[in-house]
Amino acid sequence: MKKVGILGGGQLGRMLLQAATCYPVEVFMMESEIDCPSAPYCRNFTQGNIRNYEDVIAFGKDLDAITIEIEDVNLEALIALEQQGVQVFPKPSALKIIQNKIHQKEYYSNHEIPTSPYIITPNRQALTTNQHFLPAVHKLAVGGYDGRGVQVINNSDDINRGFDAPAVLEKKVDIKQEIAMLVAVALGGEIKIYPIVEMIFDQDLNLLSHQLCPARLEEKLLWKAEAIAIQAVKNLKSPGLFAVEMFVDKDDQIWVNEMAPRVHNSGHHTIEGNYSSQFDMLWRIILDYPLGNPEIRMPSALVNVLGATNYSGKAHYAGLETIMQMDKVFVHLYGKKETRPGRKMGHVTILGKDITDLNHQVNTIKRNLRVISS
Amino acid sequence: MKKVGILGGGQLGRMLLQAATCYPVEVFMMESEIDCPSAPYCRNFTQGNIRNYEDVIAFGKDLDAITIEIEDVNLEALIALEQQGVQVFPKPSALKIIQNKIHQKEYYSNHEIPTSPYIITPNRQALTTNQHFLPAVHKLAVGGYDGRGVQVINNSDDINRGFDAPAVLEKKVDIKQEIAMLVAVALGGEIKIYPIVEMIFDQDLNLLSHQLCPARLEEKLLWKAEAIAIQAVKNLKSPGLFAVEMFVDKDDQIWVNEMAPRVHNSGHHTIEGNYSSQFDMLWRIILDYPLGNPEIRMPSALVNVLGATNYSGKAHYAGLETIMQMDKVFVHLYGKKETRPGRKMGHVTILGKDITDLNHQVNTIKRNLRVISS
Repeated sequence: MKKVGILGGGQLGRMLLQAATCYPVEVFMMESEIDCPSAPYCRNFTQGNIRNYEDVIAFGKDLDAITIEIEDVNLEALIALEQQGVQVFPKPSALKIIQNKIHQKEYYSNHEIPTSPYIITPNRQALTTNQHFLPAVHKLAVGGYDGRGVQVINNSDDINRGFDAPAVLEKKVDIKQEIAMLVAVALGGEIKIYPIVEMIFDQDLNLLSHQLCPARLEEKLLWKAEAIAIQAVKNLKSPGLFAVEMFVDKDDQIWVNEMAPRVHNSGHHTIEGNYSSQFDMLWRIILDYPLGNPEIRMPSALVNVLGATNYSGKAHYAGLETIMQMDKVFVHLYGKKETRPGRKMGHVTILGKDITDLNHQVNTIKRNLRVISS
Repeated sequence: MKKVGILGGGQLGRMLLQAATCYPVEVFMMESEIDCPSAPYCRNFTQGNIRNYEDVIAFGKDLDAITIEIEDVNLEALIALEQQGVQVFPKPSALKIIQNKIHQKEYYSNHEIPTSPYIITPNRQALTTNQHFLPAVHKLAVGGYDGRGVQVINNSDDINRGFDAPAVLEKKVDIKQEIAMLVAVALGGEIKIYPIVEMIFDQDLNLLSHQLCPARLEEKLLWKAEAIAIQAVKNLKSPGLFAVEMFVDKDDQIWVNEMAPRVHNSGHHTIEGNYSSQFDMLWRIILDYPLGNPEIRMPSALVNVLGATNYSGKAHYAGLETIMQMDKVFVHLYGKKETRPGRKMGHVTILGKDITDLNHQVNTIKRNLRVISS
């Protein structure tokens, strides 16, 4: 059996383990937190720092292949492991582009992939000299993950919120819709794409409210988005599972926002909503099986389960009983012992016949389910 | 989080772990084979003998609940654990009935559950004095699992194949169809039933060829089978997930063949074919969540992946590539390192719009996939 290591042991790792149980593969995992969501479901678990060169080398040197569930891993170690013959998903050369927001932006420019205009800012001072570029979004080049490392700079008053480190200053897009697409690339180069997902934001809370798949987008725009996402992934020249987040602006232009070279939040609905889930797909790629079927089984919505404001401590899922009674609803709780305000504790996937049906259920879930402390 | 132990670490345990990843639960497992299908996916794995009183007590004493993936476990230990306040799924009182084929037959008689007529035979000698009862099936009272402990005794020439130990001699049923039904019983007593499954046998090989769900059975017989299965499970007065195997004879009479008080082979298709799988359902029962939705998402067929005759050694799945390319096909390989003739190495679930579609795919799979040694 192929020995495959995963760097990181969060919920993405947990769902990768869930999918691995269908195939003959020996899974290894490294993560610094022994209490992470994945550890209980992995015998070959190593406590270690995925950002540390020695730790990653020690973990990976006897493996056949290695993959990641977070971008923030030691790149040099992966380059060394690849040279030693370990297959790395995605290739370190692709990860290098994505790990650094400046490289990522330059990559888009070099390959004529539409992305909002930008300026590279070596420090905060550079914001002051580029005020003509505002309103804009300031993105830290390195180390900004999970919504951290991003600041909206609307005008000169906001400049002090900018990063005093190498960063990208992006023109603010006049967003009509946010969408995402998963792209699978096989070892042999074959590509399969998943139907596009739409992210719906809560304007009051400025937070993702829920996701819908398929996205409500006219056919012409769907095709355009697909072409752009394929273009963005193909030029990385790497096997793996990729997520491309895009904006549709008020003029129906499509802009690539960001990419992730790994299984992604925007693809959790594929576990029940599609024939081959993003997790299943990544195993197929790693094990060099034919790519799976990304088609939709049923339209789906996805609601994240976040820790409620004002509660910290042992997690309690108030209202869970109501949700668990719903007919076409699938609850995924990540087994995190402690809740904190805004902490991602799980997600709920809803299948429905149409958008009205899905929206109705989304509202029921959002009204009833709350993660508090007990 | 509730601490739940599973006795046994085979493929059923592996699929229970797969389903557990959706819920906040701490899973423990005991099994004598460290190389079993479940061990790689369970951190809290104890090597131990599930038939040994001390081992089961030591494993279970600090748990909140315990369940089984095989009947052949130490009953006395489970009785003691239940008295100490550990929840046991199924209740030891129910397991006691099912573990012993004589008790099981008497239970059916006592509750007017149709089952083929039988005689209790204390030893092989008793077969000679009951030749008027032939043709019949001889079933060892204790310890006969997975097809072992069953002998067909057609006439006096076969008597030497009978068991020289307490057993049940059952009148042979003139079988038209074999069917099975899963029944879920919540802690509070609520019952939900799964659509009936049909087992199709290969007459030449005298082996299960594949399963179909829903079963091809006229409505009147469906209702009758459902009523009988509910009756068979309800009187056990135990929460849990149960499988009831039944015969339909040439006169359209339905007879209970056997019951299993656990997740079961006949229910693997529910992972992709139904909204709540049998594994998900058992977790809901154990965690005292509302029962799931057992409805069919799409008609399904299931083909077991068995070790090919004449091959022993390191498993190799010839033809797997062809199967993995099929659009609505889900491969489950249990990660067993060694193949042996007839060893259950995995299963393949097929979704299809109708019976013709399913049959066509079943044939493709059976023609192409072979477990050989490499």
